[in-house]
Amino acid sequence: MTEYLREGERLDDLHRNGYKIIQNPSKFCFGMDAVLLSGFVTVKPREKVLDLGTGTGVIPILLEAKTQGSHFTGLEIQPEMAEMAGRSAVMNGLSERVSIVKGDIKEASRIFGGASFDVVTCNPPYMEAYHGQQNPSEPKAIARHEILCTLEDVIRESARVLKPGGRLAMVHRPHRLAEIICRMRECGLEPKRMRIVHSYVTEEANMVLLEASRGGRPWLKTEPPLVIFREPGVYTDAVRVLYED
Amino acid sequence: MTEYLREGERLDDLHRNGYKIIQNPSKFCFGMDAVLLSGFVTVKPREKVLDLGTGTGVIPILLEAKTQGSHFTGLEIQPEMAEMAGRSAVMNGLSERVSIVKGDIKEASRIFGGASFDVVTCNPPYMEAYHGQQNPSEPKAIARHEILCTLEDVIRESARVLKPGGRLAMVHRPHRLAEIICRMRECGLEPKRMRIVHSYVTEEANMVLLEASRGGRPWLKTEPPLVIFREPGVYTDAVRVLYED
Repeated sequence: MTEYLREGERLDDLHRNGYKIIQNPSKFCFGMDAVLLSGFVTVKPREKVLDLGTGTGVIPILLEAKTQGSHFTGLEIQPEMAEMAGRSAVMNGLSERVSIVKGDIKEASRIFGGASFDVVTCNPPYMEAYHGQQNPSEPKAIARHEILCTLEDVIRESARVLKPGGRLAMVHRPHRLAEIICRMRECGLEPKRMRIVHSYVTEEANMVLLEASRGGRPWLKTEPPLVIFREPGVYTDAVRVLYED
Repeated sequence: MTEYLREGERLDDLHRNGYKIIQNPSKFCFGMDAVLLSGFVTVKPREKVLDLGTGTGVIPILLEAKTQGSHFTGLEIQPEMAEMAGRSAVMNGLSERVSIVKGDIKEASRIFGGASFDVVTCNPPYMEAYHGQQNPSEPKAIARHEILCTLEDVIRESARVLKPGGRLAMVHRPHRLAEIICRMRECGLEPKRMRIVHSYVTEEANMVLLEASRGGRPWLKTEPPLVIFREPGVYTDAVRVLYED
């Protein structure tokens, strides 16, 4: 598969169906949050899935392997990132089932049309403003900070592209949970399932997984806490199953 | 202390400062939720605390023992319950520091005036509508169902009686968390600390503890999960410290 690689890129094993993914460590590599989100989201047989801000394309490729959804689209604004994600899809023989589209989250409903997906996933930038020293055109800055899209954009466009009863699944930092929940409800997305992620069971949360339903009735189920480490360097079983074949 | 008891009542030990509490099991007894709330809320030295819907008065009496707050008021609409809670305060020698007021949560800001407390606590009825077979004038029905006040009433009145920067701490069922968070924000109360309660670490949540600040900036800290049982019948250390001297 190395014929698919360009300079500075590497191949990583996804431990699912023999799939691999192309990454460029000098630009951006996916993190555990993407893996946790792909293990959390509900995708039912024959459903169509859109991943907003797909980066390397890891979420659509993992979901193609893990679920019985019919088609998986990744939307990515950065041309080089979108091109690389597209190569990963082709390399894994997934051109029929995984499409990577170059485009802006803020225009998702214009690009794809309203009520066109059953499920939307998103691992958006977590940081509100951009006050760092990095160049704001850097892929890492774009992935981490709300430079090209805000939480509000993600939730508004998700609500528009989802069919009634469709679901948005998101991973984010828990310190923004109140804002996330209220924005979802303002857009007609009712939070239905939540899972709080803690590095250790005795530590405060560092991620939250949330699934909302377009037009759902209010009733939020809070699942057992997802604990990452049993002891330093040793994953809990809940995390190991996400990383192993 | 039995001279304070009337027919059908009993004395329970609070395991704090030798305090006891009068309860009438045929009417209503406080549950673990009240104890967890009294262990969760932040009360700083010299602060004034109001407990909305105080029932037996357990929360103001526990907080008098556990914190350095200067004064603790319990508001209770049911005359017999308010009278009994008042006897518990007197029996423990707390008439100077704990006041029980008979009145309606919906009128709290009229009764006490605006911006008159540093902290509000509330263990409100959890169930939205009342579709049970019980008599809706029964104390147990009033404690469990939104018969005499709703979540909206509790949050609106809390926001009114709190000073700027003051805190509302609440215990509730997690299935209503989205509604709680959004109502708080609508009333200018920003959720700042959350603790999710699970009977077992592998089970979905059954309670949530939430503290919001009047006019606070958005930043929610999610504390480690609070797990009740280590194994069947055996409390975790986090819970044992709340029940033992």
